[in-house]
Amino acid sequence: MESTAQPPKLRIALLGFGIVGSRVGQMLIDEADLLAKYIGREIEFIGIAERDESKDHQGVPDHLFVTDAAKLIIEGEPDVVVELIGGLGAADELIKLAIAQGASVVTANKALLAARGQEFFGLAQAAGVDLYFEAAVAGAIPIIRALSESLVAYGIYSITGIVNGTTNFILDKMSSDGATYADALVKAQELGFAELDPTADIEGIDAANKTALLASLAFGTWVGVSDVFREGISALVPGDFRAAAANGCVIKLLAKADLHDDGSVSVRVHPAMVPIGHPLASVSGANNSIAVSTHGAGELMFYGLGAGGTPTASAVIGDVVTVGRNRVGGVVGMSVAMSKTSQVLPMSANESQYFLRFDVADVPGILSQVGAVLASHHVSVRNLSQASNMAEEPSRAAELGVLTHVTNEGDLLACVAELDAAAFVRSEVRVMRVEG
Amino acid sequence: MESTAQPPKLRIALLGFGIVGSRVGQMLIDEADLLAKYIGREIEFIGIAERDESKDHQGVPDHLFVTDAAKLIIEGEPDVVVELIGGLGAADELIKLAIAQGASVVTANKALLAARGQEFFGLAQAAGVDLYFEAAVAGAIPIIRALSESLVAYGIYSITGIVNGTTNFILDKMSSDGATYADALVKAQELGFAELDPTADIEGIDAANKTALLASLAFGTWVGVSDVFREGISALVPGDFRAAAANGCVIKLLAKADLHDDGSVSVRVHPAMVPIGHPLASVSGANNSIAVSTHGAGELMFYGLGAGGTPTASAVIGDVVTVGRNRVGGVVGMSVAMSKTSQVLPMSANESQYFLRFDVADVPGILSQVGAVLASHHVSVRNLSQASNMAEEPSRAAELGVLTHVTNEGDLLACVAELDAAAFVRSEVRVMRVEG
Repeated sequence: MESTAQPPKLRIALLGFGIVGSRVGQMLIDEADLLAKYIGREIEFIGIAERDESKDHQGVPDHLFVTDAAKLIIEGEPDVVVELIGGLGAADELIKLAIAQGASVVTANKALLAARGQEFFGLAQAAGVDLYFEAAVAGAIPIIRALSESLVAYGIYSITGIVNGTTNFILDKMSSDGATYADALVKAQELGFAELDPTADIEGIDAANKTALLASLAFGTWVGVSDVFREGISALVPGDFRAAAANGCVIKLLAKADLHDDGSVSVRVHPAMVPIGHPLASVSGANNSIAVSTHGAGELMFYGLGAGGTPTASAVIGDVVTVGRNRVGGVVGMSVAMSKTSQVLPMSANESQYFLRFDVADVPGILSQVGAVLASHHVSVRNLSQASNMAEEPSRAAELGVLTHVTNEGDLLACVAELDAAAFVRSEVRVMRVEG
Repeated sequence: MESTAQPPKLRIALLGFGIVGSRVGQMLIDEADLLAKYIGREIEFIGIAERDESKDHQGVPDHLFVTDAAKLIIEGEPDVVVELIGGLGAADELIKLAIAQGASVVTANKALLAARGQEFFGLAQAAGVDLYFEAAVAGAIPIIRALSESLVAYGIYSITGIVNGTTNFILDKMSSDGATYADALVKAQELGFAELDPTADIEGIDAANKTALLASLAFGTWVGVSDVFREGISALVPGDFRAAAANGCVIKLLAKADLHDDGSVSVRVHPAMVPIGHPLASVSGANNSIAVSTHGAGELMFYGLGAGGTPTASAVIGDVVTVGRNRVGGVVGMSVAMSKTSQVLPMSANESQYFLRFDVADVPGILSQVGAVLASHHVSVRNLSQASNMAEEPSRAAELGVLTHVTNEGDLLACVAELDAAAFVRSEVRVMRVEG
């Protein structure tokens, strides 16, 4: 018999036992002492809700598993609910239920937050609970904590990053091996870097979700995924990579968010040519990197693994510690300040350099004709090159590569439409944005 | 007349009005609304203690300035004291006084914390106040917050960084221009990258202070500056840079901290040859970069400005926000967990690759003699090269460059001592550690 009452333990519930969830479950057990030390209170791991009863429990005690997540949240009275189901389905109602029950929430669910974060953050704030999501963006890189706490006084005006490892792996393959998109995708799937249905990754949806969250935090305004201009990598062809290399560049799927002087924002995800000397050019494989431009402290860069069970689980556990400490102290952490609603500029207002690539009739005076079309749309040429003809048979067409000065995207697309329609242009005009 | 009582404002005192202090003072005034929003309470900037009455107030209202810091702390009843005096002098007693008065402290004072941090962190913990120091290490890079919060579950076992901009600038100059150390130092002083008395920077003292703090946080054990092996850059000669370049390397002042499997730690600051392809090789000028190796999440890297008034002040303000929020919530943040006392290994236990450079008599059989000395000390050769003779007049000496395999430093130094004493060695043996 103890003579003094122990403080209640911090009750933790886990939803979902997939790649990340299973590692979190193991760490909640294996690292219980460490967590208790950091949180300042013993933890009690009250259960794991996993609908798929056939899943291997991977050493986690069977008695912790239940199938009814809502029941675990309601009857288990958790202090902290860790949501690792993912997606827009069951997770939606379960997070709302957890908040309604007064639990703090840790999640890695970028899709749900980017779609309905404003509602969720509002619910959490009203209920006086935490909603943390470090693992939702860039895996192990502590960028969410940095943006929402450390950098609040830095005056962030731009974020540029590589935030999707699957596409980065595929682009690397297409760059280094000259592989087609289809072959590179199969290779990525074989190695476990791409899912069987790779749509969310290759069409830039995953990156757009993450970019929306980064922009929201960095600029203190709500940017939803529907505000993000998005272009994936599935339409890229080997010729794009050859042309990029010939111009000293690699192709990366870039996430970009800019805060303009008038308070409007631009947020976009698309492939771009990046000069080989650029810090983002050397980010390889499944790594992520995020560059943050600030008025007060210049450029910052963060680099690390963007995915994987243990890296992502480690980020989740870091959130559990902070949310747990807040819970013990009776406070909530920094709430996501997204009260502002900034104007989101359409992509047609984008200003960028562009690289155009197309075949033209190889006849005298052709450059003058091309130049006239460019000039009529205010597109100024920085560099024009004629590639060696790649066609196996001799032809009367030559491939032109045109690097523009910084140009308005609306003007550029009008120019491309006119070129596409011109008789002297003998191929589709390929358009690539150029970074840095 | 108001009908409801306002909550008391958060009272902030600033000690020191130098390069960083003056920017913090301006930001506390200019960003008062932003700070109030993040902190959740209005702030009241109660005063600035600056002993030098001749200092330009840089637009900060004169009435805020006082000369007696202790009086400001005792009579001003600050909630948060921002100490930016620096050094081991007055700051010591003033931080203790602030803690004794129940104030939380934000400081950038790496020297004081690295010397007596264990005492200070203990005092803060006992008093239930915060002691935050993000700006003490790597300026604008939020590495302290990352190590003490986000990465607690990552299993950090090694940190490698460039944490001193002054030496990095001088080494860049010596590398790119072939400048002597003395000339590069003068250039750095002219451009404001080095102080008139540059000792703390060039002898690695500043870097050692920062490395002690990084090691303490990363490994959860107390490492003081006296535990750090330290070697500065003032003894480097142009020949070292030529030899490094000939071997595909640059020379950087590296900060290294390792946690070994048996729980012991090694912490050191010294120049090292770094291969040109290594991420740290391209860190230029006043930038800092810190690579963190973890068991759970692989490699992370952080990059940004390591010094400068506004970048450092921005980091200080980030701490003021968090400490202020904690104060309003009646809690303290994560306390620095340095309760462990790990064995600190001596440098003689270090394992590294080394590069030796020395002149030998240019006679047959010399390699065999050199090889015998190396072998007798268990030093295994990875690469041996004979440089073109740099001397303007022909001589009978040739310069040898020896890159070793990983070797114990004790063995290596014994080997060097024997080489130095050998008749066939015609110069001092230059020794450089090699990273990566």
